[in-house]
Amino acid sequence: MTVQLNETHDLQLRSWVQSANQLNCDFPIQNLPFAVFRRKGSHQPYRIGVAIGDQILDLPAAHAVHAFAGYTELQGGHFTAAVNAQTLNGLMGLGAPVWSALRLALSRVLREGSALQGTLHACLLPQAQAEYALPAHIGDYTDFYTSIHHATAVGKLFRPDNPLLPNYKWVPIGYHGRASSIGVSGQEFHRPLGQTKPPTVEEPVFGPAKRMDYELELGIFIGQGNALGTAIPVEQAESHVFGLCLLNDWSARDMQAWEYQPLGPFLAKNFATTISPWIVTLEALAPYRLAWHRDAADPQPLPYLDGESVRASGSFDIQLEVLLQTPAMKTAGTAAERLSLSNFRHSYWTVSQMVAHHTVNGCNLHAGDLLGSGTQSGPAPEEAGSLLELTEGGKKPLQLSNGEQRVFMEDGDTVILRGWAHKEGAPRIGFGEVAGTLLPARQI
Amino acid sequence: MTVQLNETHDLQLRSWVQSANQLNCDFPIQNLPFAVFRRKGSHQPYRIGVAIGDQILDLPAAHAVHAFAGYTELQGGHFTAAVNAQTLNGLMGLGAPVWSALRLALSRVLREGSALQGTLHACLLPQAQAEYALPAHIGDYTDFYTSIHHATAVGKLFRPDNPLLPNYKWVPIGYHGRASSIGVSGQEFHRPLGQTKPPTVEEPVFGPAKRMDYELELGIFIGQGNALGTAIPVEQAESHVFGLCLLNDWSARDMQAWEYQPLGPFLAKNFATTISPWIVTLEALAPYRLAWHRDAADPQPLPYLDGESVRASGSFDIQLEVLLQTPAMKTAGTAAERLSLSNFRHSYWTVSQMVAHHTVNGCNLHAGDLLGSGTQSGPAPEEAGSLLELTEGGKKPLQLSNGEQRVFMEDGDTVILRGWAHKEGAPRIGFGEVAGTLLPARQI
Repeated sequence: MTVQLNETHDLQLRSWVQSANQLNCDFPIQNLPFAVFRRKGSHQPYRIGVAIGDQILDLPAAHAVHAFAGYTELQGGHFTAAVNAQTLNGLMGLGAPVWSALRLALSRVLREGSALQGTLHACLLPQAQAEYALPAHIGDYTDFYTSIHHATAVGKLFRPDNPLLPNYKWVPIGYHGRASSIGVSGQEFHRPLGQTKPPTVEEPVFGPAKRMDYELELGIFIGQGNALGTAIPVEQAESHVFGLCLLNDWSARDMQAWEYQPLGPFLAKNFATTISPWIVTLEALAPYRLAWHRDAADPQPLPYLDGESVRASGSFDIQLEVLLQTPAMKTAGTAAERLSLSNFRHSYWTVSQMVAHHTVNGCNLHAGDLLGSGTQSGPAPEEAGSLLELTEGGKKPLQLSNGEQRVFMEDGDTVILRGWAHKEGAPRIGFGEVAGTLLPARQI
Repeated sequence: MTVQLNETHDLQLRSWVQSANQLNCDFPIQNLPFAVFRRKGSHQPYRIGVAIGDQILDLPAAHAVHAFAGYTELQGGHFTAAVNAQTLNGLMGLGAPVWSALRLALSRVLREGSALQGTLHACLLPQAQAEYALPAHIGDYTDFYTSIHHATAVGKLFRPDNPLLPNYKWVPIGYHGRASSIGVSGQEFHRPLGQTKPPTVEEPVFGPAKRMDYELELGIFIGQGNALGTAIPVEQAESHVFGLCLLNDWSARDMQAWEYQPLGPFLAKNFATTISPWIVTLEALAPYRLAWHRDAADPQPLPYLDGESVRASGSFDIQLEVLLQTPAMKTAGTAAERLSLSNFRHSYWTVSQMVAHHTVNGCNLHAGDLLGSGTQSGPAPEEAGSLLELTEGGKKPLQLSNGEQRVFMEDGDTVILRGWAHKEGAPRIGFGEVAGTLLPARQI
C-alpha cells in the first residue's frame, strides 16, 4: 500500500475551532483522531468523538445534522449504525475507503469557512469536560517485541550469556496478551501479588511485586480483519490497520523473571495494560512515514515480510516520551518529569510486518483487535522505554530533579506516555497521553 | 468449596428419553451438559440445548412451556434472557446457585414419570440432526501446562540438558492463547505456513509446517468472573467454574521450536484450537472427584494454592482418549484408531489452583473465558497426549493396525478426543467428542 497525501494533509488548513490552530496543539485539523467519550460523570452511553483542538466533535450528532451528506461511502444503515455505536469496532470494520472518506468530510466541515460551522458548534464538547472508555471492544490482544535495542538490553539482564536470541532478526517475535485487563488512560491498579524468587533464597516467596515497571509502546488497532485460514499479505497489511494509540505494558519484573520460562510472561503482565483514548489514523500519519531498511550485515527479511512499500515507507517518525509524577511531585504541585524520549523509527520490524507475520499461518484478526509494538527503546541508553533498562536492571538509581530517586516504581507513582509526529513548520500530529497510577498492594 | 452429592446424582435415576438409559451412553440423566445448537443446515439462530441420551432438549423451548416454574432461582428477566441467548455467557454469569437449580429442575422433568414428558417431547431434537457453534463467546483464552509428565517429556526434546524448569513445581505455568481461532468440533484447518529452522541449515526457511501435532486437553469454562484488581481464593475457585469440555490444542512443533523463545508459543498454536460442543458441569462430575496430594519429596503448594477442599477433592477422575482416522481409514470405512488413553487425575495442578493463580495478581476473568488444562499426559509412555511424546520427538514412528505409520500428522488426518468419567455399575458421565481435520497447506 503506497502512502499518499491529499488535501487533508495540507499544512495551511486551519479550523474554525480556534484551539486547533495553536502551535503544538496535539489535535490540529490535520490529525482528527477517534475516541469514545461522554460528559464527565453523566453516566450516559459512550459516543464516538473526533478530537479537534481542545474540543471533541460528537460524531453521531454531526451525522444527525447531515454533516457527511454527499459522500457515497458515508451513507446507509451500516455507516449510521457504526457511527452511533458505543465502540469504534463497527467503523473499524467498514474499511479504509470509509475511514478516508470520513476524514475528508471531517476535514472539510471543520475548516475555516465551512458552511456548517454554526450547526456543528453545537456538536462540540470541551475535552476538559469529557471522560473516555476503551475505544473498542478488544477481542484479542497481541504484544510484539520489535525494538532490538530493548530486546538486547533486557536479554542481557535475563540471559547474560545469550542476550539476543538467534530467531530475533528473522521472526517478528510476539505473544498473546490479556485483553480483559486493558484499561483507558487514568487506570489505577494495585501492585500485584504473586510469586517471585529472589536470587538469595532457595524457594520462591509470595507477596507484592518489588520491581514494578512500565513499558513505552504504541498500540495498533486492527480495522478490517481476515477470515480464519487466510493471510494478509505484507503489502496489503496497512489497509487493515485503523490507527495507532499509546500503550503502557505494565510489568512486574521480579514475577516475570521467575515465571516466564518456557511459555512466556503471564501474571507479570496481565494485571493491567493502559492505552490512550485517542486513536490516530494511519492516514493522519502519512506525512511522517520513513523508508525502512535492514542493515546489510543483518539478515534481510524473508519474502513474506518484504516488499516495495515496506522498504519505501514502512517506518513511522513518531516521538515517544515517558514522564513520571511521584506522590511528592503531586503534593508539591510539580509537573511530571521526563524520564526518556524515544522514537518509533527505531523499530526493527514495521507495523505491516507485524500484521503479515501474525496472519501468515491463517490466524484471524478482527476489527478492534489490538497489537502492541513492544517497548520502543532507541539506540542510546537514555532512549530506553522501561526502568529495567534505564536503571540497568535496578543497579543504577535514577536521580530525579526534586532530589528523589527511583529504581523501580513506588506506590502512588503516575507514569505518563506521550507521543507526537512533528516537522518544523508543520502542525503536530499528537496522540495525547496515557496516564496510569500504581496503588499499594491489596491486603492479603 | 466442598463437593456435595444430591438427588441429581442418584445412580438409579432413569429418563423417559430411553436412549439416556443405555449402557455407556455419554449423556444419561446424571450428566445434563450444555451446548448451543440448531437444526443442521437451518441457518436459524443458535439456541441453548441440554444433552439427554441421543437427543437435545431445547432449553428456551422448555422454559417457554414453564418447565422450570416453581424454582425461585429460575424466574425473572435475567434468567429468561440468559436461556434465550445464542451463547451460554449469560447463564454462565448467573452463578452456581442458578446452575444448580437448573440442573435439579432438568433432572426432575426429564425423569421417568415426569408429568411434563408429553409437553417436553416436542422440545427434543435428535443430536444426529443438529449442528453446533462455540458454546460461549470466549473473551480470553489461557492455556496451562499442568501435566508434569508432558512438561518433562517435551522439556527433554526442547531442552535436553534442562527438561523440567525450576519454577514448574511452584508455579501453575500458563500463557495467553488466541481466542479468535477457537472452533467447535468438526473444525478443518489448513496446515499452517511459517518459519522453521531445520537443525541442518544455517538460516530459517518458509513453508508448510512439517511436524503437525495435537494436544489432548480439557477446557475449563469460567462462570462468574471477578472484578479487575480482586482475586478468587483457591477455596472459592470452583464456584466460578461453569464446567469442562474437551480441547485440542493443535501445534506445529517445528514452528514452535524456532519461535518460542523468549515469549512463548505464538504462530505454532494460534491457527486453530478445537473444543467439544458439550460442556459438562462441575456438579455432574461431583461423584468423580479425587483427593489431591503432592508427593512429600516435592515442594508443597504455597498457601494461596493450598486448602482443605483442594486436598480433599481437588482432582478429577476423567478418562481421556485420543483417536486417529487417516484418509486411508476413511476410504476403507475403518473406524478411528486409539493412539492413547490418559486421565485428568494425573494433573500436577488442580482446576481450582489454575483459577486462583490466574487471578492472584488481580487479573480479571469473565463469564465464558476459557482455560486449557495443558496436554494431559499420564506417567506411562503410552498415556502421552501428543505425537511429539508418542514418537519421541519424531524418532519412533507409530505403527497403525492397517499397516500405515505416523510420525506427525499427515494431510487429511482427523484426530478425535473423547472423555468420560465412569465407575463400575454407574452411568457414564461423557463429554462426547471433539474432532478436527488437517487440510493441506494453502498455495502460497
